[in-house]
Formats: sequence, structure tokens, C-alpha cells
Amino acid sequence: MFRKNVPETTIKRLPVYLGVLEHFEKQGREFVNSQDFEDLVDIKQAILRKDLSFFGELGIRGKGYEVKSLTFQIKKLIGIDSRTWKTVIIGAGNIAQALMKYKSFEDINLDITAAFDSDPAKIGKRFGNVPVLDIGSLEQVINEEGIKFVILTSPGEVVGEILEVLKQTKIKGLINFTPEYLRVSKKVKVINVNITAKILTMFFYLKNQ
Amino acid sequence: MFRKNVPETTIKRLPVYLGVLEHFEKQGREFVNSQDFEDLVDIKQAILRKDLSFFGELGIRGKGYEVKSLTFQIKKLIGIDSRTWKTVIIGAGNIAQALMKYKSFEDINLDITAAFDSDPAKIGKRFGNVPVLDIGSLEQVINEEGIKFVILTSPGEVVGEILEVLKQTKIKGLINFTPEYLRVSKKVKVINVNITAKILTMFFYLKNQ
Repeated sequence: MFRKNVPETTIKRLPVYLGVLEHFEKQGREFVNSQDFEDLVDIKQAILRKDLSFFGELGIRGKGYEVKSLTFQIKKLIGIDSRTWKTVIIGAGNIAQALMKYKSFEDINLDITAAFDSDPAKIGKRFGNVPVLDIGSLEQVINEEGIKFVILTSPGEVVGEILEVLKQTKIKGLINFTPEYLRVSKKVKVINVNITAKILTMFFYLKNQ
Repeated sequence: MFRKNVPETTIKRLPVYLGVLEHFEKQGREFVNSQDFEDLVDIKQAILRKDLSFFGELGIRGKGYEVKSLTFQIKKLIGIDSRTWKTVIIGAGNIAQALMKYKSFEDINLDITAAFDSDPAKIGKRFGNVPVLDIGSLEQVINEEGIKFVILTSPGEVVGEILEVLKQTKIKGLINFTPEYLRVSKKVKVINVNITAKILTMFFYLKNQ
């Protein structure tokens, strides 16, 4: 079912499609069409159809896409199934605390095993039931728990040191909440959550509208 | 210089390019080429060249792009210049507090005028020097300060009410940190910072690698 060489831009939109489907499922809709997607998330209909075509013909002519069936298929494609994905958060500041308390992560079977910080005032505390551990035990916990990806929220000045530690582990992915672009190694996929970039995109729209 | 009909996907990448340029400027680089971009942020060279072609021929054959000059031009395109952009944050929870304390916003001349919450324990406090005001004064402050876009961080259950208030204002943009996709009106551009979607993209990579 899954074909190789799906473009990166398509992959990035799959979770967006899932969010749109959930939105319409909550409203009790049985079918959605590509116009519904365009209205809610500004994705052109031709792009949606092309994206979904990578995964086979999923729409029904004249009716659109069946919400439950498309949700099921996209979840399967993404990897939201019976498995639980484990991760750790590096840093225990405001953004990290927000993530630890984030309720929607239960819906996607994400298990935040621990957060790591060097601040003695934070170590030993729990946020949303996630314990904050000493940053010194990061490598050990990643190895013991078989963590495949980490979430990085630490301030810029300690990032270099942390990347050195991560290079010693077998992680395959890093979600980067710092404003800096960074690399771990060729084997580690970095996904950036760049908040400043989102705000700059807004500036551009407002300036050019 | 700026041509109409620049694709949405190109616009979204401009701030990313800026971040990459800043990264290389810190390293003292005078020129960067499209390979440098691809290495740091996984954007294919052909895409970079096509994106920048919308804004005229900016590279120098054989040398690549001059870091300072390209930075200057992208900043101008985006609207980072002498002007200050004002915004307000709706909600004063963990993510909002992190945004209020976010130092990198000074670099892009973003001025967070205030945050708004309904929690009496938060109203009157300051985070990173941003005051938390009563949510009841949201419409008034937006109007008086001429706010063009807002940042929404409130929990799902109050979002409906807040959107009703926002419909009474003249805002043109909303940055959405809630996990829900939403619309204000046809006139309001919504930019989603969907953290769950980023994590799902990671699942997809790990599952299919």
C-alpha cells in the first residue's frame, strides 16, 4: 500500500489531514470533500487529491471521502495504532512543561517517559505525571528505554553539549523546539517546530495582503 | 520586486531560509550554496532555487548566495524592518508564558502588548514583562492598540467564545497554538502551530525508514 518516494511535503500534510478529519467527525459528518479541506486549512484541492493518490484511490466519486475510513487509513499510514511511541523531553522549562501536560498526546499513544534538566529546583518534580530527571542520566535512560526520538527544548547555550551526548545514542529522530537549526548526524531526522518562523510568515501575509 | 502569486509553500519557507542564513552568518560564512541549505534543513536544492527565483536572481554563479545580502533581501520581503509588529496572546498558560519570555522575538521587532486570561490568579501578573489582563478587555485592547494579529493558546473549551469576540474586531491574522483547526472568517488568515502534527510526522518517518 505505501509507495516509496512520497514527497516530504506530502508526508508533512498527512497529520494535518488527520486533524481536519477529526474536526469533521466531531461535527458528525460521514463524508468530506476536498473543498472542506481547503476551507479549513488552506490546502488546495488539487494538492489534497495528489497527496492521497500516493496511497491509492481513497475517495468515492460524487460523495468525497468517507471520514472514518480515511481516518483509519491515514492513522495506519502514519503509525498511530496499538503501539505506544516513547520519547523524552530535554529541558523542563515552560514549553517542556506545557508538553508534559498536553492531553492530546494520549490520543496518539505518545508516552513521555521523562524530562531532563540540570536545575536542582526542577529535578525530582513531576509535571502532568512526567518526572524531571537529572540531565546527567539522559544517555542512560535513552539506551535503557530504547527511545527512538527526543524532543529538544533547552536554551541555546547548552544545545551543543546535548548534541554531543545524543550522538552517543541510537536515536533516529529529534523534534527541535529551539530557534536554532541544528544537525545531530546524517542518521537523525530533525523536525523543527520553529515558532519565530510561523510569526514571520504572518508578517509576510499582513505586509503583502 | 515582489511578484504576486508566490505559492503558499514558498512563503512558508522564507523564514526557514532566514534561520539558515543566520546559522551560517554566526559561523562567519560569507557565501552559502544550495547544498548548505539542503544539509541543514532538508530542503531540496531545486526547491530553494525555484523559491528564490520568485524574487529575482539573487545568487552569484559559482559562488552561491551572499549571506548578508540574501538575509537583507529576505528580511525586506518578509517585513522585518524598522517597523514593530504588535500582537497579543490569548491565554496565559505554559505555552503563553514561554512565548512571553521568548528572547528571540526582539530580533524580529515583535512586541507582545499583553496576554489575556480569565484566571484571577494570573490577571495582574507579568511574565517576561508582558502583563496579563482580564479576558473581558480583549476586544477593547485589540481595537485601541490597532492589533493586526493575535496568538491563540487557550484550551479548547473556551475557543468558541473567543472566536466570537475576535469576529467583532478588525484582526487579519491568528496564530493557532490549539490542537484544533479553526476558522474566524474569510478575512482572517489562520497559521497553525500544530505540535501533535509534528510528532505524527516523526512517527511516520520512524515507521517507514
